[in-house]
Amino acid sequence: MATTIRPATRADIPQILKFIRALAAYERAPEAVMATEADLERDGFGPNPFYFCLIAEHEGCPAGFALYFFNYSTWLGRPGLYLEDLFVEPELRGLGIGKALLEQVAAIAVEKGCGRLQWAVLDWNTPAIDFYLAVGAEFMDEWRTVRVNGEALEVLAVRAGGACAP
Amino acid sequence: MATTIRPATRADIPQILKFIRALAAYERAPEAVMATEADLERDGFGPNPFYFCLIAEHEGCPAGFALYFFNYSTWLGRPGLYLEDLFVEPELRGLGIGKALLEQVAAIAVEKGCGRLQWAVLDWNTPAIDFYLAVGAEFMDEWRTVRVNGEALEVLAVRAGGACAP
Repeated sequence: MATTIRPATRADIPQILKFIRALAAYERAPEAVMATEADLERDGFGPNPFYFCLIAEHEGCPAGFALYFFNYSTWLGRPGLYLEDLFVEPELRGLGIGKALLEQVAAIAVEKGCGRLQWAVLDWNTPAIDFYLAVGAEFMDEWRTVRVNGEALEVLAVRAGGACAP
Repeated sequence: MATTIRPATRADIPQILKFIRALAAYERAPEAVMATEADLERDGFGPNPFYFCLIAEHEGCPAGFALYFFNYSTWLGRPGLYLEDLFVEPELRGLGIGKALLEQVAAIAVEKGCGRLQWAVLDWNTPAIDFYLAVGAEFMDEWRTVRVNGEALEVLAVRAGGACAP
């Protein structure tokens, strides 16, 4: 299989944004992508990046990406790896590219001393769910994800009367 | 209300571990905490910490904590703040200490340019769920959390035949 996986560079930013938009469209939220190339460069390619990215190429062409960062488990006392985005071009699915990306992310997690690899999947995305079960993933269905966005976040923050970040 | 909130220091590590253990016991997983004081010092108080921590004190005594780190939204093109742990001593609940911690975390999120504040709650934890709804949180119930742990992670990693981290 002529698939290679490599870390993304600044030159990949336009392609990364295309992948992000294609994944959002697949996830039925095409209008949700506000990110710009400048955002992705500032946040992923500076001295203290908020994210890391792998690019998969198939026969020399961009085929997919995996975008991740590190979280922390206070139970394990070790970092974890969180896979924010995993995407393969629809016409290149079924060739093992998604699995190769996931395996590479797992290798990075182990290399960095992470105790676990975590991500999220939409409940209707049966092909992805079946794929994840096949690689030994567990579903943490007793945990509900909670989010405070935009205006509600501002309201909550104002009540604090100033930040005291370390 | 004689409650103060401040960033944790190295001197708080034994208390942070007590809070982590008390939260795990409340979450019906008292045996899950493998973390040691040395782990928490290495990962939270070095040059590139994996987590940050706030301590709440009530009338001069440790009352609770909030432990967080940053994630990334490829849709917003901005970091987010992830609240891993929020805990208040049982005998000090109902005094607004949890809310004060959450507000302080929100203020840090806004100060750092985060587009959202996110966390997870166990589906049976009704008091917490009601509290989160009251502060304007949304539940992302269409997303399922997926995890690969321990041996399954090692198996996946070995298949990659070596890491290519950026």
